[in-house]
Amino acid sequence: MSGKGEFDFIRDRLAPLAAGFKGALGLKDDAALLSVRAGRELVITADTLVEGRHFLKDTDPALVARKALAANLSDLAAMAARPLAYMTNIVWPSGSPEDFRTRFADGLALAQDDYALPLIGGDTTSGDGPWVIAITAFGEVPAGRAVLRSGARISDRLVVTGRIGDACLGLKVAQKQYQPSSEDAEYLVGRLNLPTPRLPLAEALQAHAHAAIDVSDGLIADARHIADASGLGVTIELDELPLSDAARRWLDEQDDTRAARLQLASFGDDYELACAVPEARVDTFLAELRKGGVDGRVVGHFHDGTGAAVLSDGQAVEAGAGGFTHF
Amino acid sequence: MSGKGEFDFIRDRLAPLAAGFKGALGLKDDAALLSVRAGRELVITADTLVEGRHFLKDTDPALVARKALAANLSDLAAMAARPLAYMTNIVWPSGSPEDFRTRFADGLALAQDDYALPLIGGDTTSGDGPWVIAITAFGEVPAGRAVLRSGARISDRLVVTGRIGDACLGLKVAQKQYQPSSEDAEYLVGRLNLPTPRLPLAEALQAHAHAAIDVSDGLIADARHIADASGLGVTIELDELPLSDAARRWLDEQDDTRAARLQLASFGDDYELACAVPEARVDTFLAELRKGGVDGRVVGHFHDGTGAAVLSDGQAVEAGAGGFTHF
Repeated sequence: MSGKGEFDFIRDRLAPLAAGFKGALGLKDDAALLSVRAGRELVITADTLVEGRHFLKDTDPALVARKALAANLSDLAAMAARPLAYMTNIVWPSGSPEDFRTRFADGLALAQDDYALPLIGGDTTSGDGPWVIAITAFGEVPAGRAVLRSGARISDRLVVTGRIGDACLGLKVAQKQYQPSSEDAEYLVGRLNLPTPRLPLAEALQAHAHAAIDVSDGLIADARHIADASGLGVTIELDELPLSDAARRWLDEQDDTRAARLQLASFGDDYELACAVPEARVDTFLAELRKGGVDGRVVGHFHDGTGAAVLSDGQAVEAGAGGFTHF
Repeated sequence: MSGKGEFDFIRDRLAPLAAGFKGALGLKDDAALLSVRAGRELVITADTLVEGRHFLKDTDPALVARKALAANLSDLAAMAARPLAYMTNIVWPSGSPEDFRTRFADGLALAQDDYALPLIGGDTTSGDGPWVIAITAFGEVPAGRAVLRSGARISDRLVVTGRIGDACLGLKVAQKQYQPSSEDAEYLVGRLNLPTPRLPLAEALQAHAHAAIDVSDGLIADARHIADASGLGVTIELDELPLSDAARRWLDEQDDTRAARLQLASFGDDYELACAVPEARVDTFLAELRKGGVDGRVVGHFHDGTGAAVLSDGQAVEAGAGGFTHF
C-alpha cells in the first residue's frame, strides 16, 4: 500500500484529470453527470485489460494508460462517434509502489490531452493478482447515425484504413524475436504501444459506410465479425493488405510470404477501421479519408454466404480462426 | 477455460440479458447506444469488486452478481436517479469452471429482473488472479436535479433510511463469529448479501434533500463525506442509530454497548441512504419515505466546522477513522 490510500490517490492524481468537467463532481460523489445534446445518442464502450494477457508484464504504466484509452476511443471511432469523456476502474497489484500508480496517472494525463477528454469517474482498489484496468469511454453521435457492424450489404467493398500488421511486428521487436533497423523498430513498437484511433473519420463513415469495426482481433476475424452480424460472407484479398514500409521490409525477409501476410492479417491490435462501403461510394469515401489524413484501401468484398474466405493470387488460403480470442 | 470461449459465453449467457434493449445491439458491436430524454441528465457510476477483498472467497457467483448490481444501483439511488441500464466488465480466475460463469449470469438475470434493467455491454476476459467484477450503471435524472454530496447546509438534519449495522453482523454470522437464532442469522446474512437500493426514494430526495450519499463505507465515514464535500462538520448521535430487532438482540449481549454501536456505525455495506435535510422539511421527508416503504430517522445534524463528531449520552466518543478504506 506504500502509505497513500485510495482517497489520496484519487484526490491528488485523478481529480486533476477531471477538473475541467463539471459533471465529474471532482470525482468526489457517488456518480458522474453527463449531458447529451438534443438529437444525439450516447455511445458507450468498455474494455478490460489484464497485465500479462493484454500487455506485457513490466510495460511502463504510462504507456498502458495511453494505449488503453486509445483502444477504447478506437471503438468509438468504429461507431462514427465523437468522444465526450471516460472513466477508469483499476485493480492495482497488492504492494505496487506509488510510482507505479503515478506513472499510470501521468499516462492518462497525456492521453486525455491528446484527445481533449475529461476523466469523469471510476474507482481504484487492489488485489492479489495481476494489474487490471477497465476503461469505459463515452461518445455521442447524431441519433440513428451510428455505424454498426450489422449494416453491410451484398457487393459492399471491404475498406481498411492505414496499415495492417505493424502491431504484430512491434510485438516481435519488443519480444526480441525480430531485430530490424532502429528506425523500423521504433516505428513498429510505437504502433503497438500507441495506436491512433481513427476519430477524424466519423463524418465520412456516417456519410458513406454501411458498417464498420475497429481491427482489434485481426483483420480477417474483424471483417468476419461484420459479415456475421450482417448475415453475409466476406472475401479478403491477402495481396491487397496495406503494409507500412517497415512491414514490407520484414515481409521481404520471409520465406513464405503468403503465410507471413496471413500472420499480419490475423494478429490484432492494429486499431485501424474496417468498413463496408457500397462500390459506387468507394472513391468518394477514400478521398474523404485522405482529407482526414488517412489512406484507405479496398481489400475485399461482402457477398452471399457465411464466414471469411482469404485469397492470394486468386487461390484460397486456409486462414484458421484468423484472430485471437482473449479467454 | 473448460471449452467455451469468450464469444460463446457472451452469446449464450449474456446476450439474452440484453435481448429487450435495442441499443445493446445484441452485445455484438463495438459499443452500446443509449438515448437520454430531453431535459434529463445521464448519471453514471462504476464499482469494482475483487474476490477476497470486497466479498468472501467461495461466495456463490450468483449472489456476487446480485449484490454487485444492487450496490451500483445504490449509488444511483443516492443521486436521486432512475436506473436505465448497466454494463459488466469481468476478469474470471483462470481455469474457473463453466458452472461458475453460468451461476454469475444466472445472478445477473435475477437482479436485472428485480430492477427491470437491461445489460447493454461490457466484456469478459480471464487472468491469473482473483475474480474481478466491475459494473457500470446508468441512470437519468431531471437536468440539474441530481442530489449531490456537496449540498448540505448549516443546521440540516442528518437523516438515515432503514437500519444500520445489519451487514456488519451478517458478516460476523457468515464468518461464524456470531451465532444468533436461525431466523436472525438468515435476516442478517441476507442484508449483507442482498442490500436493497433505495431507488423508490428518488422523488422525495429531489424534493427535500440538500445532499445524499449511500452508506457503503460506514455511516460515520459517509456522513463525514457529505460534511467534507459541503465544507461543514457533522455530529452523529450514536444512541439514535436505527437498529433492526436482530441487531438489537446482538447489542443486548454486548458488554460495551457504546463500542458495539460504534462498530455498527463504522462498518459499511448497509446501502442505506444518509441525507442532509433542512429541519423544516424533515417531517414531510420522513412521511414521503414511509410512503416509499422505508423508515427514516434523524441521527445527527450538520454545522459549522469540519469532520465528524460522535456523541453518546451527550458525551463525545472517539470514533477513529469511522469507515473502511479499500486499498
